[in-house]
Amino acid sequence: MSILIKGGTVVTAETETRADVLIQSGLITAVGTGLDVPAGTEVIEAGGCYVMPGGIDPHTHMQLPFMGTVASEDFYTGTAAAMAGGTTTIIDFVIPSPKQSLMEAYHTWRGWAEKSASDYSFHVAVTWWDQTVHDDMGTLVRDHGVNSFKHFMAYKNAIMADDEILYNSFSRALELGAIPTVHAENGELVFQLQKKLVAEGITGPEGHPLSRPPEAEGEAANRAIRLAEVIGVPVYLVHVSAEQALQEIIRARSEGHRVFGEVLAGHLLIDDSVYRHPDWDYAAAHVMSPPFRAPHHQAALWKGLQAGHLQTTATDHCCFCTEQKRMGLDSFAKIPNGTGGVEDRMTVLWTHGVRTGRLTPSEFVAVTSANAARIFNIYPRKGAVQVGADADVVVWDPAASKTISAKTHHQKVDTNIFEGMTVTGLPVVTLSRGVVTWKDGDLRAVAGAGRYIDRPAFAPMFGAVQKAAELRRPTAVPR
Amino acid sequence: MSILIKGGTVVTAETETRADVLIQSGLITAVGTGLDVPAGTEVIEAGGCYVMPGGIDPHTHMQLPFMGTVASEDFYTGTAAAMAGGTTTIIDFVIPSPKQSLMEAYHTWRGWAEKSASDYSFHVAVTWWDQTVHDDMGTLVRDHGVNSFKHFMAYKNAIMADDEILYNSFSRALELGAIPTVHAENGELVFQLQKKLVAEGITGPEGHPLSRPPEAEGEAANRAIRLAEVIGVPVYLVHVSAEQALQEIIRARSEGHRVFGEVLAGHLLIDDSVYRHPDWDYAAAHVMSPPFRAPHHQAALWKGLQAGHLQTTATDHCCFCTEQKRMGLDSFAKIPNGTGGVEDRMTVLWTHGVRTGRLTPSEFVAVTSANAARIFNIYPRKGAVQVGADADVVVWDPAASKTISAKTHHQKVDTNIFEGMTVTGLPVVTLSRGVVTWKDGDLRAVAGAGRYIDRPAFAPMFGAVQKAAELRRPTAVPR
Amino acid sequence: MSILIKGGTVVTAETETRADVLIQSGLITAVGTGLDVPAGTEVIEAGGCYVMPGGIDPHTHMQLPFMGTVASEDFYTGTAAAMAGGTTTIIDFVIPSPKQSLMEAYHTWRGWAEKSASDYSFHVAVTWWDQTVHDDMGTLVRDHGVNSFKHFMAYKNAIMADDEILYNSFSRALELGAIPTVHAENGELVFQLQKKLVAEGITGPEGHPLSRPPEAEGEAANRAIRLAEVIGVPVYLVHVSAEQALQEIIRARSEGHRVFGEVLAGHLLIDDSVYRHPDWDYAAAHVMSPPFRAPHHQAALWKGLQAGHLQTTATDHCCFCTEQKRMGLDSFAKIPNGTGGVEDRMTVLWTHGVRTGRLTPSEFVAVTSANAARIFNIYPRKGAVQVGADADVVVWDPAASKTISAKTHHQKVDTNIFEGMTVTGLPVVTLSRGVVTWKDGDLRAVAGAGRYIDRPAFAPMFGAVQKAAELRRPTAVPR
Amino acid sequence: MSILIKGGTVVTAETETRADVLIQSGLITAVGTGLDVPAGTEVIEAGGCYVMPGGIDPHTHMQLPFMGTVASEDFYTGTAAAMAGGTTTIIDFVIPSPKQSLMEAYHTWRGWAEKSASDYSFHVAVTWWDQTVHDDMGTLVRDHGVNSFKHFMAYKNAIMADDEILYNSFSRALELGAIPTVHAENGELVFQLQKKLVAEGITGPEGHPLSRPPEAEGEAANRAIRLAEVIGVPVYLVHVSAEQALQEIIRARSEGHRVFGEVLAGHLLIDDSVYRHPDWDYAAAHVMSPPFRAPHHQAALWKGLQAGHLQTTATDHCCFCTEQKRMGLDSFAKIPNGTGGVEDRMTVLWTHGVRTGRLTPSEFVAVTSANAARIFNIYPRKGAVQVGADADVVVWDPAASKTISAKTHHQKVDTNIFEGMTVTGLPVVTLSRGVVTWKDGDLRAVAGAGRYIDRPAFAPMFGAVQKAAELRRPTAVPR
Ligand SMILES: [Zn+2]
Ligand SMILES: [Zn+2]
Ligand SMILES: [Zn+2]
Ligand SMILES: [Zn+2]
Ligand SMILES: [Zn+2]
Ligand SMILES: [Zn+2]
Ligand SMILES: [Zn+2]
Ligand SMILES: [Zn+2]
Repeated sequence: MSILIKGGTVVTAETETRADVLIQSGLITAVGTGLDVPAGTEVIEAGGCYVMPGGIDPHTHMQLPFMGTVASEDFYTGTAAAMAGGTTTIIDFVIPSPKQSLMEAYHTWRGWAEKSASDYSFHVAVTWWDQTVHDDMGTLVRDHGVNSFKHFMAYKNAIMADDEILYNSFSRALELGAIPTVHAENGELVFQLQKKLVAEGITGPEGHPLSRPPEAEGEAANRAIRLAEVIGVPVYLVHVSAEQALQEIIRARSEGHRVFGEVLAGHLLIDDSVYRHPDWDYAAAHVMSPPFRAPHHQAALWKGLQAGHLQTTATDHCCFCTEQKRMGLDSFAKIPNGTGGVEDRMTVLWTHGVRTGRLTPSEFVAVTSANAARIFNIYPRKGAVQVGADADVVVWDPAASKTISAKTHHQKVDTNIFEGMTVTGLPVVTLSRGVVTWKDGDLRAVAGAGRYIDRPAFAPMFGAVQKAAELRRPTAVPR
Repeated sequence: MSILIKGGTVVTAETETRADVLIQSGLITAVGTGLDVPAGTEVIEAGGCYVMPGGIDPHTHMQLPFMGTVASEDFYTGTAAAMAGGTTTIIDFVIPSPKQSLMEAYHTWRGWAEKSASDYSFHVAVTWWDQTVHDDMGTLVRDHGVNSFKHFMAYKNAIMADDEILYNSFSRALELGAIPTVHAENGELVFQLQKKLVAEGITGPEGHPLSRPPEAEGEAANRAIRLAEVIGVPVYLVHVSAEQALQEIIRARSEGHRVFGEVLAGHLLIDDSVYRHPDWDYAAAHVMSPPFRAPHHQAALWKGLQAGHLQTTATDHCCFCTEQKRMGLDSFAKIPNGTGGVEDRMTVLWTHGVRTGRLTPSEFVAVTSANAARIFNIYPRKGAVQVGADADVVVWDPAASKTISAKTHHQKVDTNIFEGMTVTGLPVVTLSRGVVTWKDGDLRAVAGAGRYIDRPAFAPMFGAVQKAAELRRPTAVPR
Repeated sequence: MSILIKGGTVVTAETETRADVLIQSGLITAVGTGLDVPAGTEVIEAGGCYVMPGGIDPHTHMQLPFMGTVASEDFYTGTAAAMAGGTTTIIDFVIPSPKQSLMEAYHTWRGWAEKSASDYSFHVAVTWWDQTVHDDMGTLVRDHGVNSFKHFMAYKNAIMADDEILYNSFSRALELGAIPTVHAENGELVFQLQKKLVAEGITGPEGHPLSRPPEAEGEAANRAIRLAEVIGVPVYLVHVSAEQALQEIIRARSEGHRVFGEVLAGHLLIDDSVYRHPDWDYAAAHVMSPPFRAPHHQAALWKGLQAGHLQTTATDHCCFCTEQKRMGLDSFAKIPNGTGGVEDRMTVLWTHGVRTGRLTPSEFVAVTSANAARIFNIYPRKGAVQVGADADVVVWDPAASKTISAKTHHQKVDTNIFEGMTVTGLPVVTLSRGVVTWKDGDLRAVAGAGRYIDRPAFAPMFGAVQKAAELRRPTAVPR
Repeated sequence: MSILIKGGTVVTAETETRADVLIQSGLITAVGTGLDVPAGTEVIEAGGCYVMPGGIDPHTHMQLPFMGTVASEDFYTGTAAAMAGGTTTIIDFVIPSPKQSLMEAYHTWRGWAEKSASDYSFHVAVTWWDQTVHDDMGTLVRDHGVNSFKHFMAYKNAIMADDEILYNSFSRALELGAIPTVHAENGELVFQLQKKLVAEGITGPEGHPLSRPPEAEGEAANRAIRLAEVIGVPVYLVHVSAEQALQEIIRARSEGHRVFGEVLAGHLLIDDSVYRHPDWDYAAAHVMSPPFRAPHHQAALWKGLQAGHLQTTATDHCCFCTEQKRMGLDSFAKIPNGTGGVEDRMTVLWTHGVRTGRLTPSEFVAVTSANAARIFNIYPRKGAVQVGADADVVVWDPAASKTISAKTHHQKVDTNIFEGMTVTGLPVVTLSRGVVTWKDGDLRAVAGAGRYIDRPAFAPMFGAVQKAAELRRPTAVPR
């Protein structure tokens, strides 16, 4: 069975070209004009549309058990919604409890993810340390296609990694050719501020951003970066939300370090006024960490994305319904942290990125798929419209418009942080490994159709990193 | 006639892959393994080698009439030497005298370049301003494949462009979808310092860097960038040599502006101690502008290149022999400015960039060809090893080694700024539009084989620039 | 006749101390408790008040002929109003027309200023260059107590100094031990934008800030600083209004250069929304250069003041009445540039600086008098409450409050940019060289009572500058 | 008994003036010319000399028990040597062991210090946390003249303060009007690198700087600053040695935060090549933390000092003799950390600061005494030559010269990090509260003559800090 996407403008991270795209057996087999097309090929008309790689959301948490409840979106509903929005691959997180075996946790998450409609992969969190963690990291990299490990610098008394864990895990990741990633917030400071605010009677959602100031993020970002610098390993910062953290990334990159930054669609577009909304439910629906920030942070993040200081966009998709959020009615510190967006990311970025002239279409592709694929070493299998790549393709109509609403979205959550936003630029067709999963408003996602994506270790940058390490290896002074 | 490059690792700005490359009629027609190869195809064995896009040197001055003499290297000898070094395209400069018609100058240079062995294109300098210049810019863009204009902020009383010219020309370039480029040095300051130094008795080559301090470059860089920012046009800084100028680029890019920076191989590797060498000829051989700088600038430039703040590498290849340099025996200000390097750029960058871990092979391709091709809008015709691209390809042996010397180089000049440097990583075969021009030390360049490369206006970034301009268009207050 | 200021807290730039202040013959003769006081000494009760040095406004333009009219405030009315606000010294500007003799202009202004109620001094502008200008600078410094020269980088086709003038004048100032000061805006850019905006039909006051973007100021600031750096002379930037210019100052100071920045009360507190006010007169009343800026610039300026990156506060007091402003009814470019404030500066700074915790009282004294006195080398004669200093003293009631209005102010202009602002912290008594000129709302300023203040050349920083210059003096290479 | 210092140039942080200084009963009672001098007044001729405030060294460790031994210099010998170098006040450190009562430690140190020849005061370290520490901080501030608390972010498993301690102690200091100070190095990172280096066989002193990279200091500096920023308390960084830490200070100050930095004479003048010296004893003699750095850090620190980003200079005087250093023969991690310099600081700073044009004499006074006095709230009792101040005065001969050597210095240690440096600018007379303690090479220090200096809480900056805090106090949203 073959498909021809005909008459569109193919956009990659490098170029825009008028070309048709031929898909066979789940792969792209030709890109060009006047292609030789087998009989019986299904034709998808893409006139007036862009034909782009399906989005990669490198940061989601489907059905995550967290803060005493479980995220409402499961691997099936979440990946289906993703495809309605043009995203065809997610990278979710295995998060072992302290003292839990990494392998055990990994297998648990693999089990949960079997119902995924789209392709998926896993970062694995290092939340504690001993020899088994060290060893399991090796097993995961060598035998299970894991090439990234996550570290939470926040969530004291739960999954927080202190400097000792960071040092050990970062060093181990370097050996293995895997990239460490961090949630950068100073967990001690957050913990103290939560206590202080609650003691002062500030228990509503407005306390949430007050307890997690931008300085807490900037501090942790710098700490993670400097540890990585000394160890000599690349590092990736998830959900950069504060100008302070961005500045750290810029500084480190300008010094020649391989530091990467991810920004969430929400942080680009929503400001912290939501937390002072008189409706508790409304305010609580926006509680996620790091919190939405004062508007000048948004301006800074957009510039960081334009400049290439931030390479990827994600959502941290982690949904909790209104009823779940109410677990924190007596204290903002108990509101389950998380917001959705896996369905909305591509269109809000197109609307506010491409239509404003901040990004070219190629830059849009870079930040929605290609860069994530490169950093996590699955490029050009993912993130590219080129011969040999997986046929994860989206036909994008730059003129199509809609208004985002929880009432109409496909995400399994009863609120939407982009509620009421009118967006222009939408996927009309989404294909996942050559299968149409979304067409003209018809969601055809199939539970279990997604495959686990092995991500090989030692992405090309590790070659450079190793050469540099050799040249600066310390030596003893003979005496 | 077809050629198969077999068994190598194809490196592009995005990926490294084991693949063969098939070339037919001057174009790349297939990249992959197990290719269907026509009978009679010539095979080039590339085992153990990298197969990369031929280098683009976006800054050369072949046979330039300058400072009372003419550069020793002509379009044939220079492009031949380029191919011996793996560079298959140059972008040279048309430099009208003040009051000279741009069209006239353009045709003069086109005539000189007919003997080029490699493909070539031209930036055109705007050295004065009136309506004819305005109009000729339009003609050049619309009818002659020019999409970039050069401005010299130095060389007072000669070709220096003051702020009025910069404003007019930058504004015109924006209308035309062409990119302004600048040689950034404050010409007034240089002029005054030259006078002062000579008056103080400092007439030797050591006066050259003293008369052109890094501050003069940083100042001009900032001025050009800020004019471009206000006008809303992208801008490209040639030969960034000073940390100060780099800082301006970083700052502007971090603010979201489309500012590009080029660095010369010489500025990355040679420091200003050469000007205090006791041998006048040796010192004078290094006189070029901006001058070589104190070592900390080199460290900064490398980091800028690693970080992506600087996108391209070039040479400003502009050769003058020892006898020519001696025109300045009584005053450094009369030494013809220029040094060579078009043959050496790729190998010195590989040696000091890739072998040190500063750059991955893909990053090497980006900075030696792909980025220049994108900025000057000839990508992927140039700068890519992919189906449909011109077959400008270099087979690169990372283990091959030599020592650079004027005695053995192919450049038509009797000195070499890299004299005595041992390099590892060399082109074993160079192809220009499918024709082998260099193989195993045998230079087969043919005068006149090169073609003029039309560069289309309105590179994709102009779409973004225009959208942004619409959103910030000023409006009157109704009163 | 002696006066004792009794029971207050004496604040200097260094300390706050409970002490009485004894004044005799126009000088401070004792500071302390339990002072030996001559019989007949007048006592001013200062209980609950601060006793501080009278303000120095280092940037005013009394009765300036400008843009076809003359500033409404003359040297008498202006210095009287100053004293009502606690300011006891102004430094005004002699501004020769191009080709006018500096000496002639100097004497003209000295004549105008004879009616001053407060002490005064003059910066002299260098608006053109030839040998007579060079020589007159020497005469002014050696014989007339001038130690600072002003340069306008804006106002093309009028008093604009190009880089050649800047280079010559800065170099001459260094020889003379005088400090160059600059109005930093790129005059070419302003000129072009004015033309463009008017051509596009934007002729109202809203065009004013559009024609003078922050980038134009940042560019000129950097240019002036870098010229000064290369020449090796300190430099002082008047009316820093844009974050961009501030950044340049921070950068240069951080590199060890002696660069100073002045900020106007207006730029700290008023934003550019005034120019889009529907009332043309209201908008025009705020036209001054550089214009008021977007709010984030204000935040940056405050931080610059707190950090010590900006050392002085001023007003650029240059008043034009509504009728005068209307000269620009058909084009914003013809609206006489200038706003008032010499009376308001101290109280608005106290209200928004000290009462917000941005500044301590000592820091307030530093930025309202002591720092200006040091930079312009009249400290501690001015700017200090200490034995031997001129008895320019203000008794400051931190609890007194009023609402600023043109209806009640003493300035000779029919508008006030701070109109309607309620301020807390006011002078209750002002003394000028020991004479009470303002007390409890009674203005007792006397025309002609003010004296011209000679400012000696070679402030202490010049000693350091000269030593540094010796160490970096260039040398020839013997060959 | 009164003394007149006659004919010198009095230098304060503000001015240079020809004046005589009259001293009576340990205080300065007159400064001026033609003073009324009591009969019998001793005259010290100061012609050709500067008369300055005695130096304050805000960072010394006399007879410190540390790393298994005790610093060789005791409170008598150390303060005597200080006076031979023109320093008349030290601020030393009380360092309780973890779990030791602060009050107990305080009294122990007070006992040791009774033999001091010069005046002295104490910072108290917070090395652990519980309610008693909280309470003792209050007692120390209210009853014992302590207004600063020290925190070691390094020395894991010993006195290291983690973020929890920092948060608690900083918060408590704010309440008390005391300033927190920090030794900024990431102790976890240092600990890990020590282990790693020793495991790799790098056991000599060259391992010391490798285990304490500049990044470790920059990281901790940023962490301390950001915690202080969030808490809203000023913070003081001791011994800033790395450009990275300086950058953090610049950044924070530029944002308006009250952050202070101290630099050691050693870090300004000695580079890390000492650790690779073939003589183990020589290398080990330079082991202190943070270590001496690569030369570019020195350049940065000088600029920071010139710009006012760093306010104070100190020595971290903590002497260990060669035999003591040999405790670390088998591992650099066991070499007692510390170097001397209390005698040398003023002259090396004059030689390399004032004589090079980096600092004016007034700036020299600011960074050697006045700024420390202001920050630690003992100004103008200390740090000023003015009526009412303690008569801690040094008569400084800018032409006197010597070569520093352990053979001739007065410090009780057998090495000197400035060994062999020729300095110009020396104290010819030092007075401590009106008593001559050093004259023309004759050291007349008397054990026990020094007094403990109470330092009051709530320095003026705390007033500003409190006002700012009120304005940003968080509020709950009524729902
Ligand atoms: Zn997170
Ligand atoms: Zn997450
Ligand atoms: Zn050039
Ligand atoms: Zn050139
Ligand atoms: Zn001005
Ligand atoms: Zn002015
Ligand atoms: Zn320390
Ligand atoms: Zn210490």
